Amino acid sequence: MAMTRVTPTPPTVAVFDVNETLSDLSGLVPRLEEVGAGPEILPAWFAATLRDGFAITAAGGLADFASIGVPMLASMLNEGSLRGSALESAEHVVGAMADLDLHPDVAPGLRALVEAGVRVVTLSNGAARVAESLLERAGLRDLVEQCLSVADAGRWKPAREAYTYAARRCAADCGELALIAVHPWDIDGARRAGLRTGWVSRAAGAYPPFFLAPEATGRDLPELVATLTRGGQ
Amino acid sequence: MAMTRVTPTPPTVAVFDVNETLSDLSGLVPRLEEVGAGPEILPAWFAATLRDGFAITAAGGLADFASIGVPMLASMLNEGSLRGSALESAEHVVGAMADLDLHPDVAPGLRALVEAGVRVVTLSNGAARVAESLLERAGLRDLVEQCLSVADAGRWKPAREAYTYAARRCAADCGELALIAVHPWDIDGARRAGLRTGWVSRAAGAYPPFFLAPEATGRDLPELVATLTRGGQ
Repeated sequence: MAMTRVTPTPPTVAVFDVNETLSDLSGLVPRLEEVGAGPEILPAWFAATLRDGFAITAAGGLADFASIGVPMLASMLNEGSLRGSALESAEHVVGAMADLDLHPDVAPGLRALVEAGVRVVTLSNGAARVAESLLERAGLRDLVEQCLSVADAGRWKPAREAYTYAARRCAADCGELALIAVHPWDIDGARRAGLRTGWVSRAAGAYPPFFLAPEATGRDLPELVATLTRGGQ
Repeated sequence: MAMTRVTPTPPTVAVFDVNETLSDLSGLVPRLEEVGAGPEILPAWFAATLRDGFAITAAGGLADFASIGVPMLASMLNEGSLRGSALESAEHVVGAMADLDLHPDVAPGLRALVEAGVRVVTLSNGAARVAESLLERAGLRDLVEQCLSVADAGRWKPAREAYTYAARRCAADCGELALIAVHPWDIDGARRAGLRTGWVSRAAGAYPPFFLAPEATGRDLPELVATLTRGGQ
């Protein structure tokens, strides 16, 4: 008797995280060097910015990504080695987040999704114009239906309201959406809100055991898209 | 005409954060050295543990502090330089959080509060037994009425429910409580929940502009207690 192969239904809409999932933050290093700082500050800065943004979210508030990221970076820069003031230097670096390159697997992954008939949107804890700018620079803006920001949801990811806002803007149910991200906290939050999930692991280590696990994982975006849409592994 | 000096009313209950506010995390460094790791990992580990705990809180979930902190530290340790497995090494380090010393300003600060007639409790995102152990080792357990954990509130600080839980356990209104912490995210959350707040700045830099500001600040706990209870500055 032949086995029945159950092919997963593709999601209706792929909802992309932006910073680090689409964009390569290592592109901030030249700006850090321009202001007189080293690259080792980057992961600590991004983690601390998310920590404080999530704290405000957990406490019921809402803050703008740059309004946390800029003073956070300024507080971490060593005044003595800077060419300008810490705040000006931090603005110069964080302002480059809209001018970063996309990871090389993003373009083929987005094309594979669109060819499979999946709608594509972005949902960022940063400003919508950052995602617009990144996609335009890469010549991929026409593949993406909408660039959404949690600022209009009133709550940052991973609060449930951020994901349900995206579903509403896509005129779809949460279960028709697949959140695609490199950040396990985003996968966890999307699952709790009832979305499907895909984790791009790239060079990351094991998925943390304390977060809800993704439905599909790929080392790069084309591999993940194959798993999510055509039952590939 | 003589000026009327308005003396602030002391809070009924001082609610203390535990990790870093009472305890000195640098006491984990010898354990890190025992397992073959360096001290530079400590601030990054603590920030990442809070980031992911806050993410789960913002998403509506609840996780145990150690269940995040141990695998997080394990993922940051360099397997090649360790004496045992990464997980065993991380458990050895995180397990020492109940055996740390208190900062030297804690004992005089707690005594000043009790002498001023202020009740003292602790409220930690970690386990209640960690605070019990720290206070007992320092011979200060009798100054503290209760050691509370957010595990029993169902939500981590800085979610509102964590602070209202403390008020309920103290049979007091939120406005009679003063949250005392070194972490600005804790001050911000407590203010949003309607508590009074005191920030121990110790060696920290400026208070972040994106968080609600504390009612009182002290470089050490006795200075803060004077401001909160007797109108000192």
